[in-house]
Amino acid sequence: MTKYVYSFTEGDKDQKDLLGGKGANLAEMMNLGLPVPPGFTITTEACRAYLHDGAVPDSLAGEVSEHLASVEQEMGKKLGDPSDPLLVSVRSGAKFSMPGMMDTVLNVGMNDESVIGLAQVSGNERFAWDSYRRLIQMFGKTVQDIDGDLFSREIDNLQESKGYKGDLDMTVEDLKELVDTFKAIVKKETGADFPQDPREQLDMATDAVFRSWNSERAKIYRRRERIPDDLGTAVNVCTMVFGNMGDASGTGVAFTRDPSTGHSGVYGDYLQNAQGEDVVAGIRNTLPLSELEKLDKASYDQLRDIMEQLEKHYRDLCDIEYTIEEGKLWMLQVRVGKRTPAAAFRVATQLVDEGLINEDEAVTRVTGAQLTSLMFPQFDADADKTVLTVGTPASPGAATGEIVVDNDQAEARAAAGVSVILVRSETNPDDLRGMVAASGILTARGGKTSHAAVVARGMGRTCVVGAEDLVIDEATGTVFVKSQNKTLKVGDVIAIDGTTGQVFEGEVPVVDSPVMTYVSHGLEAGLAASPDQDTKDLVTSVDKLLRRADSKARLTVRANADTPEDSTRAREFGAQGIGLTRTEHMFLGDRRQLIENIILADSDEEQQAALDELLPLQKGDFVGIFGAMDGLPVTVRLIDPPLHEFLPDLTDLSVELAVKQAKGGELDEHEKKVLQAVKSQHEQNPMLGLRGVRLSLVIPGFVDLQVRAIAEAAAELIKQGKDPKPEIMVPLIGSVRELQIVKDQALGILKQVSQETGVELDLPIGNMIELPRAALTAGEIAEESQFFSFGTNDLTQTTWGFSRDDVESSFFQNYYEHGIFNVSPFEAVDQDGVGQLVAMGVKNGKAANPELHCGVCGEHGGDPASIHFFDAVGLDYVSCSPFRVPVARLEAGRAAISNESAAGGVSASA
Amino acid sequence: MTKYVYSFTEGDKDQKDLLGGKGANLAEMMNLGLPVPPGFTITTEACRAYLHDGAVPDSLAGEVSEHLASVEQEMGKKLGDPSDPLLVSVRSGAKFSMPGMMDTVLNVGMNDESVIGLAQVSGNERFAWDSYRRLIQMFGKTVQDIDGDLFSREIDNLQESKGYKGDLDMTVEDLKELVDTFKAIVKKETGADFPQDPREQLDMATDAVFRSWNSERAKIYRRRERIPDDLGTAVNVCTMVFGNMGDASGTGVAFTRDPSTGHSGVYGDYLQNAQGEDVVAGIRNTLPLSELEKLDKASYDQLRDIMEQLEKHYRDLCDIEYTIEEGKLWMLQVRVGKRTPAAAFRVATQLVDEGLINEDEAVTRVTGAQLTSLMFPQFDADADKTVLTVGTPASPGAATGEIVVDNDQAEARAAAGVSVILVRSETNPDDLRGMVAASGILTARGGKTSHAAVVARGMGRTCVVGAEDLVIDEATGTVFVKSQNKTLKVGDVIAIDGTTGQVFEGEVPVVDSPVMTYVSHGLEAGLAASPDQDTKDLVTSVDKLLRRADSKARLTVRANADTPEDSTRAREFGAQGIGLTRTEHMFLGDRRQLIENIILADSDEEQQAALDELLPLQKGDFVGIFGAMDGLPVTVRLIDPPLHEFLPDLTDLSVELAVKQAKGGELDEHEKKVLQAVKSQHEQNPMLGLRGVRLSLVIPGFVDLQVRAIAEAAAELIKQGKDPKPEIMVPLIGSVRELQIVKDQALGILKQVSQETGVELDLPIGNMIELPRAALTAGEIAEESQFFSFGTNDLTQTTWGFSRDDVESSFFQNYYEHGIFNVSPFEAVDQDGVGQLVAMGVKNGKAANPELHCGVCGEHGGDPASIHFFDAVGLDYVSCSPFRVPVARLEAGRAAISNESAAGGVSASA
Repeated sequence: MTKYVYSFTEGDKDQKDLLGGKGANLAEMMNLGLPVPPGFTITTEACRAYLHDGAVPDSLAGEVSEHLASVEQEMGKKLGDPSDPLLVSVRSGAKFSMPGMMDTVLNVGMNDESVIGLAQVSGNERFAWDSYRRLIQMFGKTVQDIDGDLFSREIDNLQESKGYKGDLDMTVEDLKELVDTFKAIVKKETGADFPQDPREQLDMATDAVFRSWNSERAKIYRRRERIPDDLGTAVNVCTMVFGNMGDASGTGVAFTRDPSTGHSGVYGDYLQNAQGEDVVAGIRNTLPLSELEKLDKASYDQLRDIMEQLEKHYRDLCDIEYTIEEGKLWMLQVRVGKRTPAAAFRVATQLVDEGLINEDEAVTRVTGAQLTSLMFPQFDADADKTVLTVGTPASPGAATGEIVVDNDQAEARAAAGVSVILVRSETNPDDLRGMVAASGILTARGGKTSHAAVVARGMGRTCVVGAEDLVIDEATGTVFVKSQNKTLKVGDVIAIDGTTGQVFEGEVPVVDSPVMTYVSHGLEAGLAASPDQDTKDLVTSVDKLLRRADSKARLTVRANADTPEDSTRAREFGAQGIGLTRTEHMFLGDRRQLIENIILADSDEEQQAALDELLPLQKGDFVGIFGAMDGLPVTVRLIDPPLHEFLPDLTDLSVELAVKQAKGGELDEHEKKVLQAVKSQHEQNPMLGLRGVRLSLVIPGFVDLQVRAIAEAAAELIKQGKDPKPEIMVPLIGSVRELQIVKDQALGILKQVSQETGVELDLPIGNMIELPRAALTAGEIAEESQFFSFGTNDLTQTTWGFSRDDVESSFFQNYYEHGIFNVSPFEAVDQDGVGQLVAMGVKNGKAANPELHCGVCGEHGGDPASIHFFDAVGLDYVSCSPFRVPVARLEAGRAAISNESAAGGVSASA
Repeated sequence: MTKYVYSFTEGDKDQKDLLGGKGANLAEMMNLGLPVPPGFTITTEACRAYLHDGAVPDSLAGEVSEHLASVEQEMGKKLGDPSDPLLVSVRSGAKFSMPGMMDTVLNVGMNDESVIGLAQVSGNERFAWDSYRRLIQMFGKTVQDIDGDLFSREIDNLQESKGYKGDLDMTVEDLKELVDTFKAIVKKETGADFPQDPREQLDMATDAVFRSWNSERAKIYRRRERIPDDLGTAVNVCTMVFGNMGDASGTGVAFTRDPSTGHSGVYGDYLQNAQGEDVVAGIRNTLPLSELEKLDKASYDQLRDIMEQLEKHYRDLCDIEYTIEEGKLWMLQVRVGKRTPAAAFRVATQLVDEGLINEDEAVTRVTGAQLTSLMFPQFDADADKTVLTVGTPASPGAATGEIVVDNDQAEARAAAGVSVILVRSETNPDDLRGMVAASGILTARGGKTSHAAVVARGMGRTCVVGAEDLVIDEATGTVFVKSQNKTLKVGDVIAIDGTTGQVFEGEVPVVDSPVMTYVSHGLEAGLAASPDQDTKDLVTSVDKLLRRADSKARLTVRANADTPEDSTRAREFGAQGIGLTRTEHMFLGDRRQLIENIILADSDEEQQAALDELLPLQKGDFVGIFGAMDGLPVTVRLIDPPLHEFLPDLTDLSVELAVKQAKGGELDEHEKKVLQAVKSQHEQNPMLGLRGVRLSLVIPGFVDLQVRAIAEAAAELIKQGKDPKPEIMVPLIGSVRELQIVKDQALGILKQVSQETGVELDLPIGNMIELPRAALTAGEIAEESQFFSFGTNDLTQTTWGFSRDDVESSFFQNYYEHGIFNVSPFEAVDQDGVGQLVAMGVKNGKAANPELHCGVCGEHGGDPASIHFFDAVGLDYVSCSPFRVPVARLEAGRAAISNESAAGGVSASA
C-alpha cells in the first residue's frame, strides 16, 4: 500500500519530489539535530490523488491518525485537548518554492473549550484568545473561502473605535469579542458553526491546502516560473510553537547572507510577540535581526550558530524561518534562499572563494535570466532627477512608469503597452496579477522579506518597499508624499531604483549597466564603469563565471544578424558566428521597389533586369557582414517570406482603389497591375504557401542573385586577405529533392564566380529544418546537406497547427488558463512535441552524415530551458539575437555541466 | 565490380527491377525456348549512374563489347560489317511499362557501306535502303534531337510528287534519294555527318534511351501512373529481324484475350512488309491478326501455340510483339497486357474458372481505379441521339465535350473547366498532354493497338479510333464527316461511346452504368440493368470479386456523410458506418444566420439564445443520420472551421462598405457590427488559428449544443426501439489536455441527458489526429481517447507546410516538373513523411490503449495506394465519400491479401 505520510524523522532534503521542499528540509534539519517542533508531512502523491479523484486516498485518515498519535505522545498533549491542547500548523510545501501562493492554517486544534485550557496551561489568556481568533480568521478565509476583508475590517473597526495603534494594544476582552464576531461571520457565510472538532479542522485544512495548488494565483505563478502543473503540494502538519506568547516570544525570517548583495553578515527581521504571518504580510514593521541580540542574546547566538551550520551544510545562501517561544528557539523552515541576480553571481563566486563549491557548481548557481536582468539599463547617474522619497531597496533594477494602485488598472494599462508601477500600502498574494503586469512595485510598508519584496525578487521585477513617507489611498487613486506635502495620482509618471530605494518624480533617463558594459566591451571597461566595489565585485563574478561557462560549453553560440552593425555587436557579445542572416531584410526600404519590379515583371528580361539591379546592393551588404565576422562563419538564408509581404495589403489596396473609382476616378495602368499582382499573390494561408525554397524554385533568378552576391562578396574579401566564411542555407525544405535542385544551381553559380574571380569558393550548403516532414526525413536530406539549422519557430507553428500571431489571441490565453501549457511554446521549445522532431532530425541526420553540423536559429536559441534541451539532444550550436548571446553562453556552459553531471561524468559538486 | 550487362540468356521475368520489364520478359521467353533474337540488356543501374553522373560507368563499354562479340559469334556476323552486317535494335524497357514514352532506335549498324552489303546478302536492295533511311530518320529524331517533321515532310513530298499512295510504293531509287536527303538534314541540323561508325551509333543510341527516361512526356506519364522518378530504364540491344523484307515478312501485335472484353480468341494486328513503328504509330491501317492465317499459316499456328503457352505461363492476359522475317517467326516482346476495366474483371474471374489462379489472386488482378471507371455513367440508350459515324471502340466510357484538335487547346479549355474531346488524325507520344486534359479521344486512323488506344486504355480515358469517315484538319480546326458531307469545327460538342465506337453530334444524356446499379442496388438489379451477356458477366465478376474482397478485408470501410440522404447512399454502397459527420455542414443555409448571431452576440445570454435556437435543428439532423445508419457507428466531429467562414469575406465587405461611404452613404449599426466582427475574426493564417477544439475551448457553448443534440437524438431513437451508435469526435487535438477538458464537459452533458431522458448513454469519445503534435504524443492522448481518426488532409498541410489551396498553385506544378512528387500528397498519402506520423500515431496509441480504435477520415481513405498503406500500418477502418466506398472495399480486400502474402501467409498464387 502506498505510504502517504512521513514523520519529520523519516525524510531528508533530497526527497523534495515526495515531501515538497519545506517537508524535506524540516526532515533535514531534524537529522542535523536542530530544534524542529515534531510533526509529519502528507506527501505530494496524496495531493495528486486528491486532485485527480476529488477525494483523499482511503488509507490517508488512518496514517494521519498514527502519526498524530506519535506526535501527541512525544509532546504529552492531545490535539485540541480541552485541558492542555496540542495545536498544529498545516502548511503547504511544494517541490519548488511558491512563496505565499498556497494556503497555510495555524493554530489548528483551538476551539471553545481548548482556548480555556490553553489559557490556563500557558498562564497567558491573551495569547490563547489571540490564537483562537487567528485560527477562525485563517480557517474562515483559506479553508471556508470567506472574504478575508470581513475579518480584517472588524479588527480595524475595533482598533479604530478604541484608538489603538496596532494589534498589540488589543486586550483579552477585545479578542474574546473578536472571536464571537468571527464565529458569527463564519455562521453567516457558511450556514454552519465554526467546526469545533480538532480532527475535522485538521482534515479540512489539509484538503484546503491541496486545493490551493490550483488556485488562480498559484497557477499564474507556476506559469511564470515554468513549474509543471501536475506536481501537487505536500502538507506539513507541525506542532505549533508560539511567537505570540508575550514579549519573550517572537518570530522572524533570516538570511545567511544579504539576498540583495550577497554580503556575509546578519540579515533578517524579528517581530516581537507575533506569529509568522505578521512578518510576511508586512502589516507591522519589523526590527532588524541584529536587534534580537539586545532582546535575547542566547537565542540570537544560537540562531547565528545554526545559520552558519546550515550555510555550510547546504553550501549556499539559506533563508530561514524561526520562532522564539518564551526564550526557546525553534526552526520552522529552511530553504536555499531566493536572491537578487547580483547576489546570485557574487554568492556563487564567494562560495568558491570560501571553498564550499567548485567553479562548475558556481556556474550552475546562476542563470541566464539573472544575467539578463543585470544587463538591463540603469538610471543615468548624471541626469537631473527629482527625488520624491527613499524606501528600502528590495529588488534591483530601474523602472519608470505610470502609477497604478490596483490589479485591474495594472493589467489594463500594461495591455495597452504602457509601463506601470504598482503602488500599494502593502501587497498580498492576490496582487500577483498586478505585479506580473507592472514594471516595478513600490509599497509604503513592509521590509525586505515582505510579500512584495520576496515575489518581486523572484520574478526579477524592480521593487522598493517600506517607503513610509508615502500614504497610498487605493480608493481615490492618490499617493501623498508626506515630507513634500505633495499628492501624485494614478497616471502620473514616477521612477524607482530597486538598488538604492530611491523614488523619482517623472521619467529618468537610463544608461548601460556596468555588466552590460562588461559583456560588450570587456572586463576593464566593465570595472571602469562600476561606481563602487560591490559593482566591481559583481562584474568580476560575471566575468569569472562566464569564462568558466565558455570553457565548459559544448554548444557554441552564434547570433542572428542582418547588418554589419548587428554583426559587430554580436561579436562583441562573444558570438562565435552568425547563425542566421535573413536576406529579405536586405530587400526593405528603397529596395522594396526592386522586389516589386521583380514580381510585376512582364517578361523574363524585365525580371532579370530588376534582379541585376539588386546584385551590387546585396553584395555590398555581404561584404560588410562577412568583413565584420572575419574568420567566423556567417549562415545566409536564401529568400524566405511570401512575396505579398513586399506588396501592399490586399484589403487596404482594394478599398483604396474601389473608393477612388466610386468617386469617379480611373485606375492607371500601374494601379491595375499592382492590384492584379496583389490578388494573384494573395493566399488564404500565406504561412502555408509559396515561400521559402518554393520561391527559389518558382523564381530561380533569386538563387542566382543571392548566391552570386554571397560569392562575389567572399571573393572580394579573400582578395583583400580576409577570411570570410559564408554558408548558404536553403529555407523550408520538406523533401531532399528541393534541396538537390537549389544546391545544384548554387554550385553552378559558385563555380562561375570562382572562374570569373580566380578565387576558390568552397562554401558549405545546408538547409533549415523547420517543417515536420524535414525532421521526419532528415536522414535523406542529410545526405545532400552540410548543415541543418532547426527553425523551431516555424516548426512550432506547423507541429501545433497555430501561428505566431496566436500568441496574442484569445485562445492562447485560454490555453494558459486551462493549463494546456505553462509557457508559450514560441518562448520555450515544446520538448514533448516539437522537441521530438528536433531530436529525431539531429539523430537521423547525423547517422546519415556524421559530418553534419546542427544548430538552431529561432529565438528558442536564446531561451535558457530550450538551450539545455538542445545541448541534451546533441545540437552543435545555438543562434539568437545579439543581446541574448551572453545569456546563451552562460546557459550553454550550465547545460554542459549539468548534462555531464547527469551522465555520471565529473560531479559538479565534487 | 558491378555487372551492368546481362545476356538474354542470363535473366528471368522476376528481374524487372534490374532488367526492366522488356528485358526480363525477353529472358523469360528465351528460357521457355521461344524464338527470341539474340541480344543483351544494359541494366537500369547503368541508367541511374548515367543520369546521376552525366556519363555511363567506365566499365560499361567493355561489358557491351563482350556481349556484342558473343552475339556476333552466335549470328556469324559483325555489327555493321560492310559485307554482311549484323544490325541491332536499341530499345528502352523500364520496370513498369511506359508504352511509347521512351526512345527506340532500330537498324543500328547501317551505314554507307553496310547498306550495300545488306542489299547483296539479302538479295533485297529495297529492304536494305529502306532500313538505312529508317535508321537515319529515327536516329536523327531520337538521338540527335532533330525535328522529326523535317524527315516525314520529305517522305510526304516525295510520295505526293510521284502520286504514291503509301510507303510501299516507294522504289529503291526513291529510298536512295531519301537517304541522301536525310543525311543532308542531319548535316545541316547537327553540323556533322551522320555517324558511320556502328559502335558509335550503338553507344549514342544507348545514351539517348537513358536520357529519354527524363523526357517531358515520360515524366508526365510517370506522374499520372505514380511511377517513381528514380528507377531509370534498361536498354535492350537485340539482333534485328526484319518485317520489311518483302511480302513474306511483316510485324504485329497480339493479345491472348480481347483486351476490351476479356473474351478468349484471336486478337491483334498484322502489317505486311513493315517494321514495328508502323503498327504502333497507326500510320497505316493494319490487318486483323486472323488474316495472317491466310497469308502464312505456319507462322500463324506457331504464334497461336506460343500465345497459349505464354498465357498459361504468365497466368494472365499477355500482350505480344512479333515479327515475321521471310516466313520465320520471331518474338520481340511479351508482357502482361493492359486491358480495359471491364476486361480486367472478366479476365480475372475467367482465369479462376479456368483454374489458372485462385480467387484471392483474382482480387489482386483488379483495381479500385478500374472499378471506379466501371461505375461511371453511360449514355442513355433511350435518349435521342444523332450518330455522326462509328469507329473502333478502343477504351470504354461515355464522354461528351467540345472538339479540340491540339494539346494547347485541350489544356486551355480543360483548365477553364470545359470537358473536351481531343480529335486527331492519329496521336503520337507528344500528344500525351492533350490526352491527359481531354475527357475523350477520337482518331481517324489506327487500330486497337495504336498509340491513342493503348494510352487511353492505360489512363481510363474514353477512346474511339480508326473513324475513317472523318477528315481532321488540325490547321483549320475542322472535322469533316465524309458520309454526311458535314463539317464540324473546334468548339462544337460531340459525344463518343468507347464501348460501341459510336460518335454522336451534340450532348447525349448519361445514365447509371449496370455496375453502378449493382453496387447501389445489388446483384439482381445489376443483372437486370445489363443489356447483354457481356455486361451480365461483368456484373457477376464484380460481384464475385467484391464479395471475396469483403471477406478478406481487415480494414472496414466507412463513409463521410453529413445528411440522412448521403448516409443512406453510403449504406447502399456497403459502408459499415459513418466515419465523419461534419457538424458545421449543418450550420449552412438558413442556419448561417444563427451562427452569425452566436459570433455577434453582445452578451453571454444573447449567445446562449442563439445556441438554443440551433439545438432542435441539429438534433433533427442527427435523428435522421443515426436512423439511416441504425445499428452502425456514426462518428460526429464537433465544430471545426474558423468562424470567419460563417461571415462575409473581409476584403469584399471592406470594399462594399467603403464604396457605400465614398458615395455618401452611412453605415448602419448592423453593418458596423458585422465589419467589426469580420475584422476581429480575421486571421493572417486561419488554417493555423482559432479552429477545431480551440473553438470548443473559447466558446464552450458549442460543445454543450452539439453533445446535447447528439445525445438527445440518440435517446429519442433508443426510445423508438432503434440502435443508434453515435461517437463524439474532437478535432484538431494537439495536446491530451485539450481532449480532457472537452471530454469532461461532454461527459457532463451526456450524464445530464441520460438523467433527463432515463436512457443510458455510453457514447465513445475520441479525437482526430491531424496535427503532427498529436501523432507525436499519441501515447498520452490515447489514454484519454476511445478512438483516433487520422485527418490526413490537415496532417499533410502541416507536415509539408503548404495548404490544400496550393494544389492549384504555380509552385505545385513546379513540384511535379521537378519530380518532388509524382502525385499530389492530397490525393495519395505521402508515405515517407505524413505516413510516418500515421504509423507512429497508431503504434504509440495502441500501445498505450490496446482498445483504441483507429481510422482515417480524409479523402485518402478512398485512395487505393493509401488504403494499402493504412492496412499495412494497422488502422482499423477507412472512411471516404460514399461514391468511393465500393472502391475502398475492393482495395481493402486487395490490401489484406497482398499484405498477408507479403507477410508470408497464404500465398495469393498458391
